[in-house]
Amino acid sequence: MQKERLWAVKVGGNVIDSEAATAAFLEQFAALPGNKVLVHGGGKLASDLGRQLGIAPQVVDGRRLTDAPTLRVVTMVYAGLINKTLTAGLQARGCQAIGMSGCDAGIILAHKRPVGNIDYGFAGDIDTVDAARLSGLVLSGLVPVISPITHDGKGQLLNTNADTVAARVAAALSDRFDTCLLYCFEKNGVLADVADGDSVVPELGYAAYLSGKENGSIAAGMIPKLDNCFSALKGGVKDVRIGHAGQLAAMASGTGLFTRLAGAG
Amino acid sequence: MQKERLWAVKVGGNVIDSEAATAAFLEQFAALPGNKVLVHGGGKLASDLGRQLGIAPQVVDGRRLTDAPTLRVVTMVYAGLINKTLTAGLQARGCQAIGMSGCDAGIILAHKRPVGNIDYGFAGDIDTVDAARLSGLVLSGLVPVISPITHDGKGQLLNTNADTVAARVAAALSDRFDTCLLYCFEKNGVLADVADGDSVVPELGYAAYLSGKENGSIAAGMIPKLDNCFSALKGGVKDVRIGHAGQLAAMASGTGLFTRLAGAG
Repeated sequence: MQKERLWAVKVGGNVIDSEAATAAFLEQFAALPGNKVLVHGGGKLASDLGRQLGIAPQVVDGRRLTDAPTLRVVTMVYAGLINKTLTAGLQARGCQAIGMSGCDAGIILAHKRPVGNIDYGFAGDIDTVDAARLSGLVLSGLVPVISPITHDGKGQLLNTNADTVAARVAAALSDRFDTCLLYCFEKNGVLADVADGDSVVPELGYAAYLSGKENGSIAAGMIPKLDNCFSALKGGVKDVRIGHAGQLAAMASGTGLFTRLAGAG
Repeated sequence: MQKERLWAVKVGGNVIDSEAATAAFLEQFAALPGNKVLVHGGGKLASDLGRQLGIAPQVVDGRRLTDAPTLRVVTMVYAGLINKTLTAGLQARGCQAIGMSGCDAGIILAHKRPVGNIDYGFAGDIDTVDAARLSGLVLSGLVPVISPITHDGKGQLLNTNADTVAARVAAALSDRFDTCLLYCFEKNGVLADVADGDSVVPELGYAAYLSGKENGSIAAGMIPKLDNCFSALKGGVKDVRIGHAGQLAAMASGTGLFTRLAGAG
């Protein structure tokens, strides 16, 4: 059976931090035809609010340590301010968005990351995404806009990496849809030369990724992102592209600068 | 045709401010049989956060003035922290809750209150509740948990009185359901003597309400709440009851102390 197409789009924090960039992005997202979901990250807003409240952000390996006060801050900022601002912005553009977090309708169940060498606090690692529930919402004409706040099913909210949420959501929806995952951030794609923003690698396979990681040409910040991309491919996502949030429409139509990932590893 | 029953429950801020009271309330709400929705208010949390951020709360006639910084605060606290905490708490109790604000799936459309003698700022007065969408979610087995953050359809979030949201949502759902609206707060009902918490008026008709308002026996804070109750009855809600959040189960079964409102005015 031919499956319907679905766009799963991840938009990062640096985009959300700019009102003009957000508007341009939402315009393009609203115009994407057919089934779609949006997953968003946090951005500087949470760190800013934390600082105003006297909570210093702590980051290890690109992951925020989430102590109890930080969990409150990210829940307010991600699940509240950002999620509702993006949702209202999409509604204004004729897109039937529904803002959600992982606890809503139980769509994303996670567990608190076990304490090893590092105690990440209330960081959540995903157990399951309720594909049937999410597909049902999409098929009823809604566009889920998902914040990376998840829960453990026992009443505890958890802070989950937004790239991972996007990868897992896209993979879960691949049972029902031909899913194309578009990672939108502040660069034009995976760069051959980090100093040259136009040196975009048009296609990156898993073997090339592994050797790029080994020889250091793929920078630290990109590694968890690319790990998520490849795990999405492995999870059944048809097509994963990474590019600039301002170029969402071009990325979706396959034109312009972006990196297409190939092979599931 | 016999309609199915639906419980529309409003829970106020003073309950949410206590963790133990919230747990006791959620336990009883989760146990209510059949179709249900929950509307929640804000409580002290928003004022506390505002104060920490140097934003002094301003209230006129029991309504919070919502300037732009206050709107950010209430969006974070109501749509984020409180909405997701309640939703995760219900999920933990086997209730398939979905946290929503007015912008989500466009369920509540409002407009910014026109500036008259007072400029309420980003206060939203409700235009429409999307009864078909909300009913659809309920009939799919979900329990909407609704924060009083609405939107104007043009991208602007708005702060709406939670009692009004509850009344309008209950009225909108009355086309499809036999709706019973339960207002849960920190008192046992409408009191004949405000100094005596047990002097609950068991039934209050519209004529008695009007004379109570005139002779001053019904206190200022109760007036907007009761106006909302009577407008819900007028809007098709079958039964409106006011009582203590800790007595939700008893109120629902019609036992214990509470005030039942009669007549639509």
